[in-house]
Amino acid sequence: MSKNLTKRNEDYSKWYNELVVKADLAENSGVRGCMVIKPYGYAIWEKMQAELDSMFKETGHSNAYFPLFVPKSMFEAEEKNAEGFAKECAIVTHYRLKTDENRPGKLMVDPNAKLEEELIVRPTSEAIIWSTYKGWVQSYRDLPLLINQWANVVRWEMRTRLFLRTAEFLWQEGHTAHATRQEAVEEAEQMMNVYADFVENFMAIPVIKGLKTETERFAGAEETYCIEALMQDGKALQAGTSHFLGQNFAKAFDVKFANAAGSQEYVWGTSWGVSTRLMGALVMTHSDDNGLVLPPNLAPIQVVIVPIYKNDEQLESITQEANQLIDALKKLKIAVKYDNRTTQKPGFKFAEWELKGVPVRVAVGPKDIENGTFEVARRDTLTKEVVAKNNITSYIEQLLEQIQKEMFNKAFEYRNNHITEVNSFEEFKEVLENKTGFVAAHWDGTAETEEKIKELTKATIRCIPLDRVEEQGECMFTGKPSNGRVLFAKAY
Amino acid sequence: MSKNLTKRNEDYSKWYNELVVKADLAENSGVRGCMVIKPYGYAIWEKMQAELDSMFKETGHSNAYFPLFVPKSMFEAEEKNAEGFAKECAIVTHYRLKTDENRPGKLMVDPNAKLEEELIVRPTSEAIIWSTYKGWVQSYRDLPLLINQWANVVRWEMRTRLFLRTAEFLWQEGHTAHATRQEAVEEAEQMMNVYADFVENFMAIPVIKGLKTETERFAGAEETYCIEALMQDGKALQAGTSHFLGQNFAKAFDVKFANAAGSQEYVWGTSWGVSTRLMGALVMTHSDDNGLVLPPNLAPIQVVIVPIYKNDEQLESITQEANQLIDALKKLKIAVKYDNRTTQKPGFKFAEWELKGVPVRVAVGPKDIENGTFEVARRDTLTKEVVAKNNITSYIEQLLEQIQKEMFNKAFEYRNNHITEVNSFEEFKEVLENKTGFVAAHWDGTAETEEKIKELTKATIRCIPLDRVEEQGECMFTGKPSNGRVLFAKAY
Repeated sequence: MSKNLTKRNEDYSKWYNELVVKADLAENSGVRGCMVIKPYGYAIWEKMQAELDSMFKETGHSNAYFPLFVPKSMFEAEEKNAEGFAKECAIVTHYRLKTDENRPGKLMVDPNAKLEEELIVRPTSEAIIWSTYKGWVQSYRDLPLLINQWANVVRWEMRTRLFLRTAEFLWQEGHTAHATRQEAVEEAEQMMNVYADFVENFMAIPVIKGLKTETERFAGAEETYCIEALMQDGKALQAGTSHFLGQNFAKAFDVKFANAAGSQEYVWGTSWGVSTRLMGALVMTHSDDNGLVLPPNLAPIQVVIVPIYKNDEQLESITQEANQLIDALKKLKIAVKYDNRTTQKPGFKFAEWELKGVPVRVAVGPKDIENGTFEVARRDTLTKEVVAKNNITSYIEQLLEQIQKEMFNKAFEYRNNHITEVNSFEEFKEVLENKTGFVAAHWDGTAETEEKIKELTKATIRCIPLDRVEEQGECMFTGKPSNGRVLFAKAY
Repeated sequence: MSKNLTKRNEDYSKWYNELVVKADLAENSGVRGCMVIKPYGYAIWEKMQAELDSMFKETGHSNAYFPLFVPKSMFEAEEKNAEGFAKECAIVTHYRLKTDENRPGKLMVDPNAKLEEELIVRPTSEAIIWSTYKGWVQSYRDLPLLINQWANVVRWEMRTRLFLRTAEFLWQEGHTAHATRQEAVEEAEQMMNVYADFVENFMAIPVIKGLKTETERFAGAEETYCIEALMQDGKALQAGTSHFLGQNFAKAFDVKFANAAGSQEYVWGTSWGVSTRLMGALVMTHSDDNGLVLPPNLAPIQVVIVPIYKNDEQLESITQEANQLIDALKKLKIAVKYDNRTTQKPGFKFAEWELKGVPVRVAVGPKDIENGTFEVARRDTLTKEVVAKNNITSYIEQLLEQIQKEMFNKAFEYRNNHITEVNSFEEFKEVLENKTGFVAAHWDGTAETEEKIKELTKATIRCIPLDRVEEQGECMFTGKPSNGRVLFAKAY
């Protein structure tokens, strides 16, 4: 198949958009800003969901489901949160269409079916969930509430990009309620760690754990923990956030509990989420000019077997060998596909599976049958090896593990090579112009300076790393004192 | 725990509503007509999802995701479908809120943020999906498309009831496209069979497979296959539908393919869905005046173990025994819970797990420890047995299978005893007044007669059973000729 994929160094953004569509991950829909997630892309998302869901359950969380709509009065109860999302809300105002008498067969909004109160399509569910928690919490015995929801949310973005920024997206949102501040803080930290574990070990994407500055914090949170990843073009991507909400939502929705001594206290909260945005991070961390590169843990097809033959007789003996291998791999729960389409040539198939990022490709021809071998190709390194038949199953099993690790290592090394310490604003701007990733710099801790730097360079503070070393220094912009570096970058 | 559950024969409808809330399945939310599915209820739904999803995948389907919103012009493209759903649509007209200057801290819809074209919140996704399929189908090689989506949909119902009829509900909707009429019809039939298999063997609810009459058909379908179940109050519940769409949507969205001979044809379609409504069917088929009765295949907790003790020493030796049993059951993948709460007495726990429908309850007291026994209680029959320790694991394993089967058999017998053949309209009305379930009667095949019967009795034709015997007769209402009985009932 002809790929005609734009090269990354020609136009990274175009490369990304083309790849997402050509590899059958997603496409734009007929609805402004909304995407269609295609079966191949959705299969990857399902693997992400399954793993995250089991991690959430292992840490004691249960799933539930809350309404899509939030009445305006409920939405505005937590003022900061409402303010933060007000500008990008889809609003339902009517509940009926009727025949448009001026256009036969067409419909119009029925003006007699106006809602008494407008409904906001949830951009996030704190409001509706805390209004529910009020009914669920009376005593300390009802706490903690550890709940997660898999859902769609809508944020009316003006400039959208597949997976990275869409008006509707899929995500999970955890919402927990606790008796003490300490327990809520620990929950928020735990979920940041769960996310980091998942993204690093499952998606093979290294992340930096940190805190958001006040400016970048979730609207309504007291503290936002985040994990930040670095894309191949030197831009950062926020891969997940976990918020310590303090008692903000408890106060807005009057959620109190009787403590062991019998007196009333407000509940402490957290919320945390990751979304289909992670699909964008996956593409932009690993893929290359030939197409997707998928870590084995997320690949819907981990191994593809392509027969090379000139006649039916050859195909038959190849298929026999292939079937043995398929059975052996399936026993190891390795997802394998035999691409025996007669409508396409091997070269086309190779290019197609390369584009779709299948980690391991096995080719078998008449010579392999003679020699008792298979040709095994790695998608991530584009290298090939001839492997003896009696050894092939364990070879592939180990290779998949190796690929998973090496993909992480490669991305880890790249990321580490793209953190630059600077001590002046001139240096800072230079590094940003060269698109070389994170910039570690001293900052005076004020929103004002942060804002000015953003205006001048489009770079934002991605996080205050949790593991940063204390270091006395001067803000690169104002010269005022600082006690540690923060990470700046341009970001998705 | 005190249950205070209304009895079924006092007020069936009240019993249902109370039970759904008290057993922690769902509750009404602060949003009109929308429910909150609580963790225990959602855990049951997740089990249903997991099983259905694997059945869909085994029959060759893949999951994907399509937008929540449908632009009005797209929505109205298939006229019958649009007309069918127009009266119950949530409509997004604006995309921004702004500060309400007359009410400090409050928000109002920003009149400057009106959408050029209104967006309908999907009541079903044929329109958006077929508008997408247009881009996916060129040649017969692109067919069939076998796609399913797990999603939320919104139908603005005026009278809502938890699970049975809510403004927003969760469901799956399959949408397939085929090269031939025959293949599409076979797909629609296959999915009806998949649904019947799932509902009968997994939910233990017997169903009757049939065709809907034209009046009851899905808006935009040429044929609707359905499975109909019978609730304990003699009302029917449509448990799933599968539609043969003919070429209606292909024509509305211009979805054509080049056949093998190279000429253009319209694609043939199906769609099929089941929803959280099945949760309502589950409750109303099996549960009793003490609470839920869950079939083991769907129970989030299949076995609960309750220790009976007077002092810590007793508890310790009981816990030792319990832990051995728990380990053994977990090895068999049986979901077991040890209820060692110190805050509640055994009687309270018994009542709570009865209310929540846990299929098997095991009690262990000091006497059991002495005798090497457990007391095992069945939720469905409310019977108890003392079982020897060395036998307990396999006893429970077999008991769970037996309960699953017997719950089906009981419901099957009930259903079969509640199908009455009648030959006159007088008899028909009498049967309906006695709330005795399905009525098998001759009907002249006209929508007019169907409508009149509905007006007079509120009963509708639930289906034309697929396995009905040919039988010459006279319509019970008009006396006109009929060649087989159809099933009438009042329905949810």
